[in-house]
Amino acid sequence: MSTTDEPIDVGVHDATTDRRYGVTGPRGFRACGVAAGIKSGTALDLALIVNDGPGQQAAGVFTTNQVKAAPVLWSEQVLRERKLRAVVLNSGGANACTGPEGFQDTHATAERAAELLGTGAIEIGVCSTGLIGQRLPMPALLEGLDTAVTGLNDTERASTDAATAVLTTDTHPKQVCLTHPDGWSIGGMVKGAGMLAPNLATMLAVVTTDAGVEGETLQRALRQACSGTFERLDVDGGTSTNDTVLLLSSGASELAPAEAEFTELLTRVCGDLVRQLQHDAEGATKAIDITVRGAASEEDAVSIARLVAEDNLVSAALFGSDPNWGRIAMAVGRSAVTIDASVMEIIANGVTLYSGGTPVADRDTVDLSGRDIEIVVDLRLGDHSATVLTTDLSHDYVEENSAYST
Amino acid sequence: MSTTDEPIDVGVHDATTDRRYGVTGPRGFRACGVAAGIKSGTALDLALIVNDGPGQQAAGVFTTNQVKAAPVLWSEQVLRERKLRAVVLNSGGANACTGPEGFQDTHATAERAAELLGTGAIEIGVCSTGLIGQRLPMPALLEGLDTAVTGLNDTERASTDAATAVLTTDTHPKQVCLTHPDGWSIGGMVKGAGMLAPNLATMLAVVTTDAGVEGETLQRALRQACSGTFERLDVDGGTSTNDTVLLLSSGASELAPAEAEFTELLTRVCGDLVRQLQHDAEGATKAIDITVRGAASEEDAVSIARLVAEDNLVSAALFGSDPNWGRIAMAVGRSAVTIDASVMEIIANGVTLYSGGTPVADRDTVDLSGRDIEIVVDLRLGDHSATVLTTDLSHDYVEENSAYST
Repeated sequence: MSTTDEPIDVGVHDATTDRRYGVTGPRGFRACGVAAGIKSGTALDLALIVNDGPGQQAAGVFTTNQVKAAPVLWSEQVLRERKLRAVVLNSGGANACTGPEGFQDTHATAERAAELLGTGAIEIGVCSTGLIGQRLPMPALLEGLDTAVTGLNDTERASTDAATAVLTTDTHPKQVCLTHPDGWSIGGMVKGAGMLAPNLATMLAVVTTDAGVEGETLQRALRQACSGTFERLDVDGGTSTNDTVLLLSSGASELAPAEAEFTELLTRVCGDLVRQLQHDAEGATKAIDITVRGAASEEDAVSIARLVAEDNLVSAALFGSDPNWGRIAMAVGRSAVTIDASVMEIIANGVTLYSGGTPVADRDTVDLSGRDIEIVVDLRLGDHSATVLTTDLSHDYVEENSAYST
Repeated sequence: MSTTDEPIDVGVHDATTDRRYGVTGPRGFRACGVAAGIKSGTALDLALIVNDGPGQQAAGVFTTNQVKAAPVLWSEQVLRERKLRAVVLNSGGANACTGPEGFQDTHATAERAAELLGTGAIEIGVCSTGLIGQRLPMPALLEGLDTAVTGLNDTERASTDAATAVLTTDTHPKQVCLTHPDGWSIGGMVKGAGMLAPNLATMLAVVTTDAGVEGETLQRALRQACSGTFERLDVDGGTSTNDTVLLLSSGASELAPAEAEFTELLTRVCGDLVRQLQHDAEGATKAIDITVRGAASEEDAVSIARLVAEDNLVSAALFGSDPNWGRIAMAVGRSAVTIDASVMEIIANGVTLYSGGTPVADRDTVDLSGRDIEIVVDLRLGDHSATVLTTDLSHDYVEENSAYST
């Protein structure tokens, strides 16, 4: 996931991983997931995550889509203060393209949560995911919030319930917690499969930490961590109206790590969550890493890796475990970056298939039948590289996405 | 297909259409399609189209992909003279990424055709389509050329055989001929589904005319016709290494139309061929026209229409006849062009679904169950518009493209 071949080692390589706990892993956080009736049936659909402090510093990054959902407009606004007491998340409706009324629904959600927690609405972040263009069932949502507040706690179950309540087409909750040898932790949960250039469905992530980190530092660390992780997952080139990553710091560990050390552990947490997203993407049967190396700049490497990751013909071939490297060459050739087809190399799962302008190995010598596939394109034009994570284009992807709103 | 709402009418609206004849419709052309054994079995796989003159003016447009197949490199080079006596086309192999040896194979093909026709290799265009990265079976191809020359004629059967010999995953030959009231004609054939930004598989098109048109005028007319037709088809954002459109003029009608009139009829021929490509695209069950209007420039309109056309989530929803307009809003919002989500409108098959920032009709009031779907996005920011043709993302698309090279 790192953007360079040699990540800086600042001493957290022996951090403890705990996959059972997510946002309640770090001290100072409680969570709850309830079935509010936003979705039909008894599925969990409303999550509440509360930061009990002592600190309430926060940071966020949001979708770059010009069509922004009401909760994105709201959360962007309140995060200017770099402070959040709590986050309310719902599945069952994106609250996007719902006009001023939809924004009022988000505001009312924040107001109710603030009232219940004894704070102001400006300290409440809101995230939504689901179908675009429909109002949320507000009476059910607000009643669900009342229930959620009474169920808040810091158990493994609470963390898992919260991570479950935000799921849409995901098949299982995705969370992680890493603890630094010094004793501070970063935990997180995520749903969906994308961010910024990527995504299949909305991606929502909440990351918590008991390290004491000041707001502007949190924001800087989050931007940097996202750029090498969430922003390097590209399933289908889409960008949701609702994508959001929030980071909350309680400071409850009474430890204040150096920025570089904090950023490194944060990047690992985000990287772990991204890998979970990749493995649980809609209809995915393959986890594909596209690495472009030998580029004149990292930006070039990322843009070419994205072209390959987003190419339907490449993705469909890999679904069929077919080492059809000609389609990779075609995708690379579409780049606005100048390349030289006579010097570049294409390598699949370690076997060089194309080099010096001609095929150099029989395609049958490559085995792509497993889940994990590594494609390397060496441009041989410079020293920069980047990896973009993607998935295959499967029948299940088409099935899930052709029957979504009906 | 036109780039403006009101195409200039220069008097060919009563042109005669003949779908049975393609490249041999205009006088002065002979064709042949043979089974050379490039593909396995007895499928036609080699086409020869000969211009018997008296004129031999020609023009061409080629893929923008930086990875260009050997026949593209060859044909681009020979067309600098704006003169072609004949075109050789093969399916069963793209002859791309095959190095200097692959280029020699193309050269040898042109040499043999030239020898058989009593001209120079520089007057022979070559086009190939099929799998990238494999050498062509040259003995079989050259022997097939010998056979093809003996079978040349100007019958309907010859035209259809030539149009059949270039097919890969197409389900039927695609050709048309239009005759101007003054008595000159333009005919054409096409295979594949794409060009420039588009394509699913390689697109090859050969267009013939018995109008007497000088080379530079032919080239100008072809560029203009392509910009409003082939370049407005976008199935999956790909761009083949082999895409080629060639235009040959025999002048056998002894008529020399004005450039505007010639360009208009040429645009109609190309538009007809593009519509046939759209309907026969790999796995397509829908023919979808994406029109963006109210744009500040035509360029803006095209770029946004492309984003919608290439979006997998939109394409999969339309495969399911699902009017999930939120995905269209999401795709539009990804544009680098500044839009205003609170003023834009989204209209599907004539029903306005989104306007003024909110949903304005129940999605169930739209029927998308038929083959033809028209999506209109009105940005309400200016007076320019453009239409991009696309298809849906179906199970058959995944099936065909995951089992291609194996």
